[in-house]
Amino acid sequence: MPEMRQNRFTKEWVVIATERAKRPEELKTKRELKPLPSYSPTCPFCPGNEAMSPGEVMRLNGADGNWRVKVVPNKFAALSRVGEPTRKIERSRRTINGVGIHDVILESPDHSMTTALLSDEQVAAILTVYKQRYDEISRDPRITQVTIFKNYGAAAGASLEHPHSQLIASPVISHQVRDRMYEALRHYDEFGECIFCQVNEEEIDEKTRVVMLTDHFLVLEPFASSTPFTTHIFPRRHMASFGEINQQELADLGRTLRVLLGKLYVGLENPDFNYTVRTAPAENAGAKYYHWYISVIPRLTRVAGFELGSGMFINTVLPEVAAEFLRGVNADQKIAGAAG
Amino acid sequence: MPEMRQNRFTKEWVVIATERAKRPEELKTKRELKPLPSYSPTCPFCPGNEAMSPGEVMRLNGADGNWRVKVVPNKFAALSRVGEPTRKIERSRRTINGVGIHDVILESPDHSMTTALLSDEQVAAILTVYKQRYDEISRDPRITQVTIFKNYGAAAGASLEHPHSQLIASPVISHQVRDRMYEALRHYDEFGECIFCQVNEEEIDEKTRVVMLTDHFLVLEPFASSTPFTTHIFPRRHMASFGEINQQELADLGRTLRVLLGKLYVGLENPDFNYTVRTAPAENAGAKYYHWYISVIPRLTRVAGFELGSGMFINTVLPEVAAEFLRGVNADQKIAGAAG
Repeated sequence: MPEMRQNRFTKEWVVIATERAKRPEELKTKRELKPLPSYSPTCPFCPGNEAMSPGEVMRLNGADGNWRVKVVPNKFAALSRVGEPTRKIERSRRTINGVGIHDVILESPDHSMTTALLSDEQVAAILTVYKQRYDEISRDPRITQVTIFKNYGAAAGASLEHPHSQLIASPVISHQVRDRMYEALRHYDEFGECIFCQVNEEEIDEKTRVVMLTDHFLVLEPFASSTPFTTHIFPRRHMASFGEINQQELADLGRTLRVLLGKLYVGLENPDFNYTVRTAPAENAGAKYYHWYISVIPRLTRVAGFELGSGMFINTVLPEVAAEFLRGVNADQKIAGAAG
Repeated sequence: MPEMRQNRFTKEWVVIATERAKRPEELKTKRELKPLPSYSPTCPFCPGNEAMSPGEVMRLNGADGNWRVKVVPNKFAALSRVGEPTRKIERSRRTINGVGIHDVILESPDHSMTTALLSDEQVAAILTVYKQRYDEISRDPRITQVTIFKNYGAAAGASLEHPHSQLIASPVISHQVRDRMYEALRHYDEFGECIFCQVNEEEIDEKTRVVMLTDHFLVLEPFASSTPFTTHIFPRRHMASFGEINQQELADLGRTLRVLLGKLYVGLENPDFNYTVRTAPAENAGAKYYHWYISVIPRLTRVAGFELGSGMFINTVLPEVAAEFLRGVNADQKIAGAAG
């Protein structure tokens, strides 16, 4: 018998389709792994090719004086850095000038790298750059929401190989973010507690969906996971906004994210994935009812008409099975033919 | 300068990315069109292979006594037809037995067919079967929401070639449906009118986003379209629930849907697509504030991390450009190498 589960944070129902259930092994990426070169002459992000990308926003240098992590403006930006976000209301149409910031974060000078193969310190350096840009951009009065995300592989929407992530800052708070905050606030109103803190306490207690528990983070297959191997990384300390993270936590998160992505890389053989930082807007820092986290979403299945038509997902892998599988994977194992 | 537009029905913002703008021609499906056979010995849906699929739910026969449209249970059903949808609340977890109905609607006995190439009458027959199943299933006390949808092509999640669509009836109202009804009700509360009727009146007046206007239907590229060529078919008469459609409207909708899909088939060269009937639950039939419609979604782009992380979409084709393009396409033109 299949089971419907409700996502407690969003109120979305998910079908856990046990009749169609797949073993994790069946979801392994069946593609040829061809190692990438460390430098590509046509890549706009490789050192030496700076003329191909428009300027530099910031960088973190290594001991050798070369950049370890660098931020550049997106050449094909979704939003324009210049101008004011003027609202226009005309009959039933509401528009705003597409003003905002669209950064690309270069995660390594080495073209062939992927997060799973970087050092813990390098991943922490990337996260430190996220935080710095998040803080800076949040002070821009035109901006109300900052979305940090990574697209890895064609199925995840990536068009360039060089390891990178992105940040888009927009002049509106999206319906999705507003809706999640509203649900969390309703819970706080009724129970006087952060719903995320409360659920995470239960998860740590029950263990079946826990992938890792570090000093500062809980890595979890969510109970009502909408797609196979969607994994959440929650800070154990209550924080509404990503900007509230401290140095110690950043270092721990570097290791945690690297190990999780390593487990996916080894266990599912280098799947395409997205990750995103789900956070309250910076103006809600300190809020008692919301809790930021990172959502890692391997792109193993297709969204079809039922999902588009109802908003409900059909997940063919039990979160408990996915968690058990990931706990058993050694993130530092080599996989045949892989880069690095 | 890009423009942000708000979907008035869902409150979702969309980025219309003029800097990345694509001409409709650039989105043509670049794949080899190989005609399918009219019969496939391995297809569970071809006449003669009935033993491969589990039983028959209903059929519409043609003048020759053979079926024109047939409904069978989905062999790999997401929900189970048997049982009661019992709710369970355990700590923070909410579950319901996965009870529901998952039908497959076979749209033609001919394996090689696709909706764009069927007759107007055949498409009307398919829609008539949708309505009959919608009405029957809505009377089942276990069911609260019926989602009718079609997956065409691998990018749209289809795994079988034989022309078919699906219906999933669930014991819950999804958050997406509930949220849209709530927004429409708020509008009704403030203005005393159906927001869909009101916006459609403006669209008919302005014409720039109208693809077709028939006796009973308006075919429209929505102002805040989230992906290229997403197209809505609205009944011109106010109706909250799909079950309220009448015979005349069904016949007109058969022609309208066939011509729209023909325009996409010719203009974008047989793209993968989904469509879905967005309707109020049957129990809300007669509601003054909601309005059902069909949403046709060609699958020309990938959902990436920004969309997952923020819920906002980046659309690279102006709806006005898409509408102009579709108005200019002759739906009955032949395309080279195509089936049929």
